[in-house]
Amino acid sequence: MTDLLASPGEAASIRSPVVVNQGGRKIGERLAAHWSRPRIIEHPKGAQPWEIPPDADVLVTQTSCWQASPPPSPPPGWPFGLRFIQLMSAGVDSFPPWLIEGPATACARGVAAIPISEFVLAAMLNFEKDFAAIRVHNTAQWKMRPLGALHERCLGLAGFGAIGRAIAARARPFGMRIRALRRGQGPLDADVERAPDFASLVAEADHLVLALPLTAETHRILDASALAHAKPSLHIVNIARGGLVDQDALLAALDEGRIAGASLDVTDPEPPPEGHRFYSHPKIWLTPHTSWGDVKATDRVAEKILANLDRYLRGEPIEDLVDPVRGY
Amino acid sequence: MTDLLASPGEAASIRSPVVVNQGGRKIGERLAAHWSRPRIIEHPKGAQPWEIPPDADVLVTQTSCWQASPPPSPPPGWPFGLRFIQLMSAGVDSFPPWLIEGPATACARGVAAIPISEFVLAAMLNFEKDFAAIRVHNTAQWKMRPLGALHERCLGLAGFGAIGRAIAARARPFGMRIRALRRGQGPLDADVERAPDFASLVAEADHLVLALPLTAETHRILDASALAHAKPSLHIVNIARGGLVDQDALLAALDEGRIAGASLDVTDPEPPPEGHRFYSHPKIWLTPHTSWGDVKATDRVAEKILANLDRYLRGEPIEDLVDPVRGY
Repeated sequence: MTDLLASPGEAASIRSPVVVNQGGRKIGERLAAHWSRPRIIEHPKGAQPWEIPPDADVLVTQTSCWQASPPPSPPPGWPFGLRFIQLMSAGVDSFPPWLIEGPATACARGVAAIPISEFVLAAMLNFEKDFAAIRVHNTAQWKMRPLGALHERCLGLAGFGAIGRAIAARARPFGMRIRALRRGQGPLDADVERAPDFASLVAEADHLVLALPLTAETHRILDASALAHAKPSLHIVNIARGGLVDQDALLAALDEGRIAGASLDVTDPEPPPEGHRFYSHPKIWLTPHTSWGDVKATDRVAEKILANLDRYLRGEPIEDLVDPVRGY
Repeated sequence: MTDLLASPGEAASIRSPVVVNQGGRKIGERLAAHWSRPRIIEHPKGAQPWEIPPDADVLVTQTSCWQASPPPSPPPGWPFGLRFIQLMSAGVDSFPPWLIEGPATACARGVAAIPISEFVLAAMLNFEKDFAAIRVHNTAQWKMRPLGALHERCLGLAGFGAIGRAIAARARPFGMRIRALRRGQGPLDADVERAPDFASLVAEADHLVLALPLTAETHRILDASALAHAKPSLHIVNIARGGLVDQDALLAALDEGRIAGASLDVTDPEPPPEGHRFYSHPKIWLTPHTSWGDVKATDRVAEKILANLDRYLRGEPIEDLVDPVRGY
């Protein structure tokens, strides 16, 4: 990695580095305001995201640019002169594999941990307090009934990266018992119990939060066999990727009362086709992949990627490099 | 106070104390299961709550028993042989003043801190994430829009008793700035900033939570002059008492866009009269005084009052005695 980083450092010393911005106007403004030396090129509208000027050193890009079926293998000449790619999202599953297998590629890991963890707490509390249903519109509806609680319930976190950790931090003072599954035995927080496997996590959880990257290994990890372990009280929250869930198995479990509810901010595909049962199921709270975005989201992404681009330009180690083999 | 407690302790040693239960079946079962010696008398249905057997030593009672206009002064003979009254609620404003001015009276302070603090976080997140409005029912609604956040917002706590403290504990990891107003300069948590007065608390807050007892001093504390200090982004959460708010002034501030929203679990009166604007106002989330009640509420009340009754029967200092002058 050091070799790879040394050469752009040298290149940058010879001529001004060229940064192609596919991140939109606000990111372009932040890039231009941050540097005097690198030349910022706004990607032309209508051009394919891989149509990069041959003298570009750095590409800043985002998921939405790559939605129109990129070719399965790299286009001729790719990656031209590109030495570093900075993605604006934490997830890399929406980019063609050849993109992240090319030059050093960093993602924006953790940048959405604050809004997503807030969203997860909102979803869990909305479920427990039945917050929409208890709103009253006339005197006849003014009837007290006991509500659910997070206190002493078990939070199962599938994934314990920046997002999982941020959820745990916010759930902790509610007195939830927290269990987590983390790949490769990575460290957990002191009070977070390690689940031996996904089935055990599903079995213990009252709220199961999917906060995993979508990879070949995690594709449809929540399937009929995993759901067979669930308690009837289970509420599922998916803020990661729709592809983590076997959606038909989820519907069957809800219909048969084997689980209690699901808050889905992601689906496969997005949006679900018109008339899909996710739109009308009384036990599903469907939202439009919106958990990551709060009023400060763009600022946080800008700060994250500017810091990483600074590291690249100074020849320092880049953070959050994507491992093409692991897939995140 | 010690004298007052010594005599019932003596009385209890001569004959079995008599406890009148107005707390309902579940509380009666818990009382009966807990003691062999005290005699538990279930209050007869249809009798007025002050119609106590003359040999009763202890009264366990709750707000709902006293809703049918008790007399303004104590009935003849009151308090008969009563030596101790245990209330099942934290608030005492719904009982006739002569009840709490009679024998030693304890409330159930803090018993609802867990469900109420959860409810307040639910209300704040529901407001920031616009959680009902972002639910989608068809493909046309699948549109991402940036949501609000608790992160770096200011939480204003009017009141810092058990409930205020529990709210602060849950809001803290969200990265909220917390300010509180507490009567008599009582201690706050280390990271909670003390507001010099109510106007200043209103002025700084993005979320203002009313967690105060209703007394002569706090009646309509949130009135037009207090609201005049508010930011247009202010969201008000009232989980205490409707009487804390000048409801017409609140509606005017919402109508004129001087504040952003209100989550009201309490009103004055309850329920609001049919057709009241609280039922239909788009910026008001009205719920039926339900924040205190979760699935474990009765168990928590039972444990709290059993512990206090044990103290009384052993002649030990009672907790959470109500101060009739202070009014809570």
